[in-house]
This record gives sequence, C-alpha cells and structure tokens, in this order.
Amino acid sequence: MNSLKEKTLLMGRQAQSAVRVLATLSGEMRQNAIAAMPAKLLAVKNELSKANAVDVEEARTNGLEGPKIKRLQITDKVFDYMLNRLEEVAQLPDPLNRVLEGHTRPNGLRVEKISVPLGVIGIIYESRPNVTPDAASVCLKSGNAVILRGGSESLRTNVVLADAMISALQENGVPQHAVQIIRVPGHEAVDELLKLDQYINVLIPRGGKGLIRRIAEGTRIPVIKHYEGICHLYLAEDAPDEMAVALSVNSKCQRVEVCNALENLLVDLKSAERLLPKLKQAFDNNGVELRGCERTRLYLPGIEQAVEEDWSTEYLAPILSVKIVDGLNEAVDFINTYGSGHTDGIVTRSLERANRFVNAVDSASVLVNASTRLSGGGDYGMGAVVGISTDKLHARGPVGPNDLTSYKWVVYGDGHLRQ
Amino acid sequence: MNSLKEKTLLMGRQAQSAVRVLATLSGEMRQNAIAAMPAKLLAVKNELSKANAVDVEEARTNGLEGPKIKRLQITDKVFDYMLNRLEEVAQLPDPLNRVLEGHTRPNGLRVEKISVPLGVIGIIYESRPNVTPDAASVCLKSGNAVILRGGSESLRTNVVLADAMISALQENGVPQHAVQIIRVPGHEAVDELLKLDQYINVLIPRGGKGLIRRIAEGTRIPVIKHYEGICHLYLAEDAPDEMAVALSVNSKCQRVEVCNALENLLVDLKSAERLLPKLKQAFDNNGVELRGCERTRLYLPGIEQAVEEDWSTEYLAPILSVKIVDGLNEAVDFINTYGSGHTDGIVTRSLERANRFVNAVDSASVLVNASTRLSGGGDYGMGAVVGISTDKLHARGPVGPNDLTSYKWVVYGDGHLRQ
Repeated sequence: MNSLKEKTLLMGRQAQSAVRVLATLSGEMRQNAIAAMPAKLLAVKNELSKANAVDVEEARTNGLEGPKIKRLQITDKVFDYMLNRLEEVAQLPDPLNRVLEGHTRPNGLRVEKISVPLGVIGIIYESRPNVTPDAASVCLKSGNAVILRGGSESLRTNVVLADAMISALQENGVPQHAVQIIRVPGHEAVDELLKLDQYINVLIPRGGKGLIRRIAEGTRIPVIKHYEGICHLYLAEDAPDEMAVALSVNSKCQRVEVCNALENLLVDLKSAERLLPKLKQAFDNNGVELRGCERTRLYLPGIEQAVEEDWSTEYLAPILSVKIVDGLNEAVDFINTYGSGHTDGIVTRSLERANRFVNAVDSASVLVNASTRLSGGGDYGMGAVVGISTDKLHARGPVGPNDLTSYKWVVYGDGHLRQ
Repeated sequence: MNSLKEKTLLMGRQAQSAVRVLATLSGEMRQNAIAAMPAKLLAVKNELSKANAVDVEEARTNGLEGPKIKRLQITDKVFDYMLNRLEEVAQLPDPLNRVLEGHTRPNGLRVEKISVPLGVIGIIYESRPNVTPDAASVCLKSGNAVILRGGSESLRTNVVLADAMISALQENGVPQHAVQIIRVPGHEAVDELLKLDQYINVLIPRGGKGLIRRIAEGTRIPVIKHYEGICHLYLAEDAPDEMAVALSVNSKCQRVEVCNALENLLVDLKSAERLLPKLKQAFDNNGVELRGCERTRLYLPGIEQAVEEDWSTEYLAPILSVKIVDGLNEAVDFINTYGSGHTDGIVTRSLERANRFVNAVDSASVLVNASTRLSGGGDYGMGAVVGISTDKLHARGPVGPNDLTSYKWVVYGDGHLRQ
C-alpha cells in the first residue's frame, strides 16, 4: 500500500517534470511524436491482439456480457480507427500559442490572450481501450502531460497501447513521462491518484454516475465530469414519417453501447397515432425492445410498461423507452428533468419549433434533424477528443485539443503607468 | 441556525427560478436593468454614505486600520467609479448567443457553438463594497443569477447597494432574485452557502489564501479561485533607468491595497549598482519601506533584511521586498516559485528577453514594460469584472462577462444519419 502511494506520487512528480520540458518544445515536435504513434501501434499489433484476447476472456469469466464485452474488444475496425485518429490529431493545428483575443488599447497598451497548456491531466475512463490513444494524443497535442487510468478489465490491452505510444515519445525527443498509465488494477490506485492535487491540474473522469460522483467528491483536484448519456429524440407533431423513423433507428441502433445512443424517445401526442406503428415495426426489425408510457401502450399494447427508473437509465443495450408528450414544452421539461445534459434532438420541419427547442433544452449538444450518434468530436470536426463533458465549466460537449488549454494575458507597453 | 439553513436554501431555489426566467429575456432587457442601476444608486447616495460611515466606524473600533479601512470606504471617487462601471457594463455587447465557432461539415451538417449562461453564481468577497455592483452587473449581463456575500465589515454598505440594484431589476422586468445578497454577518451563512451544490453552478471566492482554501475544500461546488496577488517586476540588465524606476514606483504606489500592486521587486545583478540607489530614493519619496535580500543590502545597507516569509507576503501596504537575481532564468524561477500566478512583469529593451520571460512565466498576466497596476479588466477593455482568477480552468486573469458563460453545441441536419 505504501509502495503504491509512493509509485503514484512519483508519477505525479514525473508528470510535472515532463510539463516543464513540454513547454519548451515546438508544436512540430509534439506533432512528430504523435505522427510516429500509428507505426508503433502497428508494430505491436499481434501483442495487442493477444493481450486484448486475455482481457476479453477474463471479462467473460467475470460475467461481463453483450455490449460491455463489445466495448472492450479491439477488432480490426477499432484498430484502424485508432490509427486514423492518431493521424488526424497529429495533423490538427497546434492548440498552443493561439492568439485567442487581442487588441491595442487607446493608450497604446497591446493586450493579447494566448493559449497555454493546462498542465497535468488525469483521465479515468471505462473499459474502452480506444480511449487510451485518443486521450494520450489529444493531451500531448495540447502540451499537457497525462496520467491514464483505464478500466481494470482492459488493463493488459491499455498497457500495450501506452507502451507503444511512449516509445514514440522517446524516439522523438518528447519526455517519456508526458504519457503515463497506472499499471495496477483496483480502486486503491485511483484513490492515490485523487490525492495528487499538488501535481494534477485537472481530472477528467468518464463513466457511470456512481464512479464520477465518487471521484468528484473524493478529491480537491478540479474535475471535468463526463457523465453518462441519457439522450432524447423528440418527434414533433410535424415530424416527417420517414425522417422520424430513420433518425430514431439510427440514433438507437447504429451502436447501442455508446454514450450518444438514444435512450428515451419522445413522441408528440399529435403524431403518435401516425408514427408509433411505423416505429414499432422498424425497431422490431432491428431487435430493439420498446418500453412505453401508459399512453404509448394504448397505441402499442404489446410492449412492456416503462417504469420511473427506465426514464433515467442508460441502457447501452437494445432497449428503448418511449413516451408520449403533449407538445414541445412538455418534451423540453422532460428532457431537462430526466436527461443528463449530454445530447438531445428534435425532428421537425418548423423553424419556430426548432428555435424554441434549441434555446430551451439545457444540454451540451442540441440537434435538429440529425442522429444523436452524430454528437461528438469526430463529426464536429475536432479530430479525436478525450470524451464528452456534461459539465458547464471550462469545457462542455466534446473535449478536444483546444479545450485542454488555458491561456495567459500578455501585455506589451512602453513604460505605461496607471493614472 | 436551522432558520439560517432554510433561508440560504430558499435563496438557492429562488436563484434557480430566476435563471429559468433570465434565459427567456432578451439582451436588451438585461441591458436596460443594468443601465437603470446608476440612477438607483444616486437616489440612495445619502443612505449609502451613512451606512458606509457606520461600517467604517465599527471596523475602526474592531482594530482595522490603514489600507484595509481605505478598501472599505466609499469616497466620492469610488462612488463615481461604480456608476461609470455600471454604465460601461450596460453598454457592452451581449455575452450570450455569440457564435463562438461554426462551420458546415462536408456532409452538410451545420455545427455551431453558442454561448449560454453558466447558471447560478456565488461570489464571496472581501470588504471592498465596489465589488458589489461590479459582480452583480457582470453576472446579470451574462444571464446568470448571483448570490453575493461580501465581507462582514461592509455588510450595511453592501445591503444598501444590493437593494438599489434589485429595485432596478424589479422596475425593468427582470426577476428580483437574479441578484441576492446574504444579509447576516458571520461564517455560518457562508457554510450554508457552500452546501448548495444542488443550486449553485460555480463559486467565485476572492480574498486571502486561507479563506479561499477553506472554501475550495469545504464544498462540492466548482470553484474559480481568486487568490491574492504576489506580483513581481523584474528589472533586466538592460532596463532603462528612468522607465525601471517609474514602473516600479507606479506598480507599488499607485494604490497599495489592491491585488495587482507590486510586492517583490527583482533587480538583475548587472543593473543593481546602477538602479538600486535611484530606486531607494524614489521609494523614500513615496514613503515605502524596502526590505532587501543580503546582496541588496550590500548596495543599500540601511534597509531591513527580507526574511523568507517576506517573499510570499501580500503586504497591501507601503512595504516592498527587493531581491537581486542573477539573470532572467533566476528571475523566472523565483516568480514561478514565490508568485501567486497573478501578475508579473519585466522591464527590458530586448525582444529576446521579453519573449523568453513571457513564455516562461506561468502567470495569468505577464507584462512587458507596463505597470502591474494595469493588469485588470478595465485596462484590458473588458468593462467591469467579478475579479481576477488565479486558476487555470475556465477563466484565468480578469473575469468579465464573456467568462461567465458556458456554451452549447447546436447542430442542424436534414435527416443526417451516422454511417
């Protein structure tokens, strides 16, 4: 235990040392190190597959199933996706030393607001190994040092990934401790990490409500919370049938185990009779179980009754709660009450409805006539992200390289005094 | 005690209700309410003077003195300054609904990042009553509700100020609970405020280290810390004599009791012999006591020895610590070690030195050839601010209306699906 404490402290100190060196490197050096990572991952592809297979096997033995196993697996598709994202991040413009604002005051004082790194970032995430290269590259891109802590189920996989990236740092003149990963499973290591307020500038936890709350309450380090996604789609009274069905199905089914998948479908009372049978058929075809409010079950008597708990559950599974709402205001109230402020959308042809919805829904992403699955850094053109923040402070929604910076005010005078 | 708890809870709930109404008001309505405040303050000027005189008298009886009394006093100059700032804030562009970023993706998806209010802001500040109208107007400008808690010594003054502003809200269709002030002295009310994580989105404490640390550690509410200012000026080896002396004196003496006043003067070894006698004379003329490091006292044998504690003390008084440093790197290390990350400056004619200093000093404001007293919202053209953040997350340096906003991502598609 004492040794775990010392090891974690050492990681903190090493990260701080790395930050000081990182501040002196050019954007090109950071870029080159990230650009070297895909080749390093390719070189360990076999090793990675083996480690991942052991992780998956062990997770199955421990009772993990369905979507949770799927999130853990590095298929060829996931592997290629990781490589592409690294290449994308390498090519992004340098997030540092941007002039965010600037002007010359009437007295000749030149004032500039310049982006700088945040410092040391701790990222605690669930068992999706693709987060490992995403988070490491985005943090490094912004000149930050990162301490990674993935889900224990994916530890072997994550260590192989991290070591490959660290070798890319070493060969490109970047301090190796710019990327560190906690190499032991269990809560104890996280508990030690939470104590490093002296060394870590911000913690980014991703995952379930319980985990994030435990972290936010157990540390003095500022936290950017990445809560789960209880995402809604509201089909307004004028929602076109085909688009309404296609967006509902895509939002729910394109990938069920992710945070921007649809969990609660809100159908306007005026479109219920018209849309519900078509929706039922489409979801049947996709193997999705519907759970409905009482009014929904008048139209679809065969489906299960949704209970109170369903409205605030992130299923990450082929289950969808369906509720009839009496107009846009009820839809908005429902979303602001049961949603998690992650991603919510409307399907409508009315500009007035779209505007009212966009203004009134208090969520990180508000979509009009688009699949909830399009909410994210990739589809917003940000390259990779470390996650999707449900906080309002500092970063909200997808957290990309620019969001992992702070700034300083730089002021140039010529002997300027205060009068 | 129980009743204090209930009263504070009620303030939280009222603030949340106000936020929901504020979200529906136009920028013009918020602007009109702020523009009506100066007249309201003028109407209570006599009442205000009386309340302030009682506060000052009581503070003197309780042993407050010098600069701390000066901070508390509303002179005619301070009063006019408050009026001017309110007028300035009213005229600033609306911080809400700005398109912070926006683009159309190759697939036709339109992505916009739009500024929105943070929600409810709690501001805990020291006994400078001019913070009351500054903070209230800046928060309201950004569509936030605010709960104010000024220093107990200035309670009577603050209540008169707040009530005048609240009457401006009421007469201009803005919810009166958009601005609330805690009307009882003592720590208990602050303790209750810290528990309102359900209602308050962010806390902004201003003041001494002890107070801020106690607040940050005693709450689950995110905190933007406004630590004290241990400000430095580094006179490089090529610093021109006249400018070096003028900037040092102005940084220290223009107003000693504020956070951007100079506390530690760093003199390069190569300019010490040339500058120190001139500095001594100038500070003598301004009644400032110098405390020097051992090397400084070789040149100025008459002055006190600075002890370790002096280097990290915010005097807010006519006392200045002077240290000789051997080159720019030592100056930077000293500042990054003893400074509070608030405001630090260099005096030099060398572009290379200016650049190195600006890049290496990790502070919210870094000045070249300008008085530290110019670090702030007014001189940066931000209108009024709620304070000067020494944090790196969300807002750093002067915190103006734009900094008290979050954003949402608004996405427009036409049936866009994720492939």
